[in-house]
Amino acid sequence: MPTSEPTIPDVPQSSNPQLAFPCLDNVEERTQRLSRRSMSGPEPSYTTGAHEKFHSGEPILLDWGGVLPSFDIAYETWGTLNADKSNAILLHTGLSASSHAHSTETNPKPGWWERFIGPGAPLDTDKYFVICTNVLGGCYGSTGPSSLDPTSKQPYATSFPILTMQDMVRAQFRLLDGLGIDKLYASVGCSMGGMQSLAAGVLEKDRVSRIVSVSGCARSHPYSIAMRHTQRQVLMADQNWTRTRGNYYNSIPPHQGMKLARQIATITYRSGPEWEKRFGRQRADASRPPALCPDFLIETYLDHAGEKWCLEYDANSLLYVSKAMDLFDLGKGLQDATTQRRRENAGRLQGASSQQGAADACTFVLPDEPYQETESAAEILAGTRDSGAAVDQLSEDLVKGMAPLRDTPTLVLGVASDILFPAFQQREVAETLRKAGNRSVTHVELGEDRSLFGHDTFLLDLEGVGGEIRRFLG
Amino acid sequence: MPTSEPTIPDVPQSSNPQLAFPCLDNVEERTQRLSRRSMSGPEPSYTTGAHEKFHSGEPILLDWGGVLPSFDIAYETWGTLNADKSNAILLHTGLSASSHAHSTETNPKPGWWERFIGPGAPLDTDKYFVICTNVLGGCYGSTGPSSLDPTSKQPYATSFPILTMQDMVRAQFRLLDGLGIDKLYASVGCSMGGMQSLAAGVLEKDRVSRIVSVSGCARSHPYSIAMRHTQRQVLMADQNWTRTRGNYYNSIPPHQGMKLARQIATITYRSGPEWEKRFGRQRADASRPPALCPDFLIETYLDHAGEKWCLEYDANSLLYVSKAMDLFDLGKGLQDATTQRRRENAGRLQGASSQQGAADACTFVLPDEPYQETESAAEILAGTRDSGAAVDQLSEDLVKGMAPLRDTPTLVLGVASDILFPAFQQREVAETLRKAGNRSVTHVELGEDRSLFGHDTFLLDLEGVGGEIRRFLG
Repeated sequence: MPTSEPTIPDVPQSSNPQLAFPCLDNVEERTQRLSRRSMSGPEPSYTTGAHEKFHSGEPILLDWGGVLPSFDIAYETWGTLNADKSNAILLHTGLSASSHAHSTETNPKPGWWERFIGPGAPLDTDKYFVICTNVLGGCYGSTGPSSLDPTSKQPYATSFPILTMQDMVRAQFRLLDGLGIDKLYASVGCSMGGMQSLAAGVLEKDRVSRIVSVSGCARSHPYSIAMRHTQRQVLMADQNWTRTRGNYYNSIPPHQGMKLARQIATITYRSGPEWEKRFGRQRADASRPPALCPDFLIETYLDHAGEKWCLEYDANSLLYVSKAMDLFDLGKGLQDATTQRRRENAGRLQGASSQQGAADACTFVLPDEPYQETESAAEILAGTRDSGAAVDQLSEDLVKGMAPLRDTPTLVLGVASDILFPAFQQREVAETLRKAGNRSVTHVELGEDRSLFGHDTFLLDLEGVGGEIRRFLG
Repeated sequence: MPTSEPTIPDVPQSSNPQLAFPCLDNVEERTQRLSRRSMSGPEPSYTTGAHEKFHSGEPILLDWGGVLPSFDIAYETWGTLNADKSNAILLHTGLSASSHAHSTETNPKPGWWERFIGPGAPLDTDKYFVICTNVLGGCYGSTGPSSLDPTSKQPYATSFPILTMQDMVRAQFRLLDGLGIDKLYASVGCSMGGMQSLAAGVLEKDRVSRIVSVSGCARSHPYSIAMRHTQRQVLMADQNWTRTRGNYYNSIPPHQGMKLARQIATITYRSGPEWEKRFGRQRADASRPPALCPDFLIETYLDHAGEKWCLEYDANSLLYVSKAMDLFDLGKGLQDATTQRRRENAGRLQGASSQQGAADACTFVLPDEPYQETESAAEILAGTRDSGAAVDQLSEDLVKGMAPLRDTPTLVLGVASDILFPAFQQREVAETLRKAGNRSVTHVELGEDRSLFGHDTFLLDLEGVGGEIRRFLG
């Protein structure tokens, strides 16, 4: 956003007073503040504090043909690796989390899963060696769009290659190689981590003994893609992003776009039932006239969620990692296509630092004739009936794709009030695994009597979620 | 958004190609186009074609203290008003619709409810005289923020006063007075119109014989407020809006913000089940590498929905009308407070054209200590349990508030797949009416076996929705 003053026309006396917009003033003040900071030195890098760092000097080939000449993975551990290195649990994070799942000696700040890890906790550090990483593509110490490209010596920004869940998992297994861990006791994750815990088992079935997938899925569904799409769109519409096409690292970050994106995300993380009881229709100050800026309590809650996050995470990491979630699909069709593509691109690892052909550049252009709305309900109903066979075929594709997990004991946990990863998606995971012949599937669904917190239940419900995990890990 | 060229830094050879962003190029091209148009003459006004116009030379006092010195209501009619003027149906619209519910001689373009109105149709023009208006605050011929303020001779813009559903209904009854219609055969509406059809009955119980409320509610709930909040926020974040604080009428309209807002809205209008079958995980062009711009079919669908709408509706109308929806609550508490406020403000009608005191200006500022997240699930669970009594009190408040409808036959229709006005809200309306002593409540809920189209079902399902209305109207 330009730092110029608002150019509100000088309106003559009007019938009613001009409304005020403190929420916009507030954003503009932050822009001014950041602008001064930006002129006085480089951006601070994103961090949640001290962590270990694994460096791979070997290049990595990504699923869609990109190559990172080298990369870092930030990680933290809790508990002790036993002599035969058989007690390691790899914990996968949600979209924007760091490796700091629990406090450490060097970083005593509480982690994002503080109560779920520790002696006697669900991830019991008396028994297990727990490892958590910041994902590839993130901004908390692992290589991502804000990292320097060793070729250009500039931040990758939007020359960072498209990522997949499997790419992130591949990078994690490089770390496990580095730690000398052949086989995991368990692969555990919630939300995006619930996708990764499954992906890890499919990709490296001989190296994963057990899987815990909480509020995750086997393939993203259109509503989730739509909600992430709007977050990316509002973020990229921030002029600090648009103007630089994502190369904002030497100027002001797109803090307003990030604030807006986080507000939309927050709606998907928490849902109706809890809000109904906690906020209802309360206004923040009922003695004041209504405003177009935040006014109802639920609005100030969303505003605050956006405010406290908008400078805490790298905007491009959000774009790439959220896109990777959209692309997630454990179906056999996509897996085979990816294998084929990786084979064709294998040569890129040799000349890892030489630029790829321009033909690879993403130049997708929208079709001239966009999607046309069908006017008649009858047509649509007829259309959806016809696609029944296609849906069955998709399920078959998923059963084949998840067949590598046939012998892996798996806990699948869902929450009825989750609107982002709805409970039908965890049911799909469990049913698909059973169809694939897996006889050790534990499926738990927390009803609304147990949790009203929607997707975020995994962060909050120590007994409902943690208890199940503890019992499953044994 | 500034019309300057993107300032993408000149990046040296990089490890991977720079991604392209055709969706942003596209928006920037539209800005250029609009900028040329803007310099060559005034903005075209919004219209959906020929309609009748009712002009009230008398001022109107609004619920939150604003005054319009005079106002227009655009309307269209179908069928013939009978001799004793007893066959009139007032049809209320959704948020952004015009009065053009059905084609007319002067405007043969199909209306937004074309198949639901006509000889033998659910709103049978052989029997009824159907009236549809553009709401007060809209932009299709009725007075709204884009209209000239008679005091300033400039567009109201954001000096337009805060509106309520009841204000819109009051303006409609002025039109009915003008037409000499004392009593409606029925007040019918879907979505926002479903709120208004109830509000009309409460406000003017002796003038409304029957009510049809489809996919509406008796009070907005926090999820709906949250979704509308994000739409307002992304719209106001458009630099064409921010820079002018909504006074963009002599420059470029906030078309990008409108496009983003419409995409979010579209998610709430259609929901999961239909999208699953219609779009699934199909990419628009699977032979291309993935992109951060629209890529999956669901994304191109949303993009298109935003594109075709972004210049069709006034941004400030969206802000004011969507805010009026948030404020909707038929509870007795708010009704009484409003009655009291209207009494205190009645004097403003006398000096309708003199500016109100600055003390009324909306200057709400967020509290310094924003809403604090409760860390422990136990605390929240305890908190929500304690609020059980508060929830019961709220229901009691609603029963009292809707008591004026005790003797009004009412059809309440909901759709199980609706995420914007979830089915529990129509159940609430029906139960509240019954608690208030109404013995003529018909409640219908269309299950997922009948409709997968979510909120938009009312536009699509002629038999499921229209059939019920036909049977109810008799």
